[in-house]
Amino acid sequence: MIKVVAKSKIKEGKIDKYVELTEELINKTREEDKNISYKLFQDLENPNILTFIEEWEDKEGLDKHMESEHFKKIVPMLSEYRIGEGEVNIYKEVN
Amino acid sequence: MIKVVAKSKIKEGKIDKYVELTEELINKTREEDKNISYKLFQDLENPNILTFIEEWEDKEGLDKHMESEHFKKIVPMLSEYRIGEGEVNIYKEVN
Repeated sequence: MIKVVAKSKIKEGKIDKYVELTEELINKTREEDKNISYKLFQDLENPNILTFIEEWEDKEGLDKHMESEHFKKIVPMLSEYRIGEGEVNIYKEVN
Repeated sequence: MIKVVAKSKIKEGKIDKYVELTEELINKTREEDKNISYKLFQDLENPNILTFIEEWEDKEGLDKHMESEHFKKIVPMLSEYRIGEGEVNIYKEVN
């Protein structure tokens, strides 16, 4: 199992638009074969921080996701509403 | 439900020691009433990045955890092996 944490800082006033755009991405990603979970979270102290926390059966599942039509269509649209690059970490479980 | 992502960059050569120190913290935290899950992850590209991903029933459960004996004993010991402050986000679910 691998875990992904993808954290974005959203431009002022664009949170609703960003969340709306993620809906199709979330629904289609959850239908992918090797996806275990795919959820969007909002920071309690700073609502402009929106973070995907994802669980995949293996790295191959994640790679395939990043080649999917919904990923290639929606992720570039999301980047318009993000400040900077965002921060993505791909993890394996230690304990 | 709230989610915590606590990311640390570990000093060179100190990963094993850090992981060893987290064991008691992990075991005791998992026994806490409002803890749903509490796991340690390692970044696939940069093994010096170690991150706790935690799930709590509510904010009260997390606050109580931070007042627990095991937290107050072990977390300051861990900070010796960390570069800088670490990065902690507390999240609520959006979707």
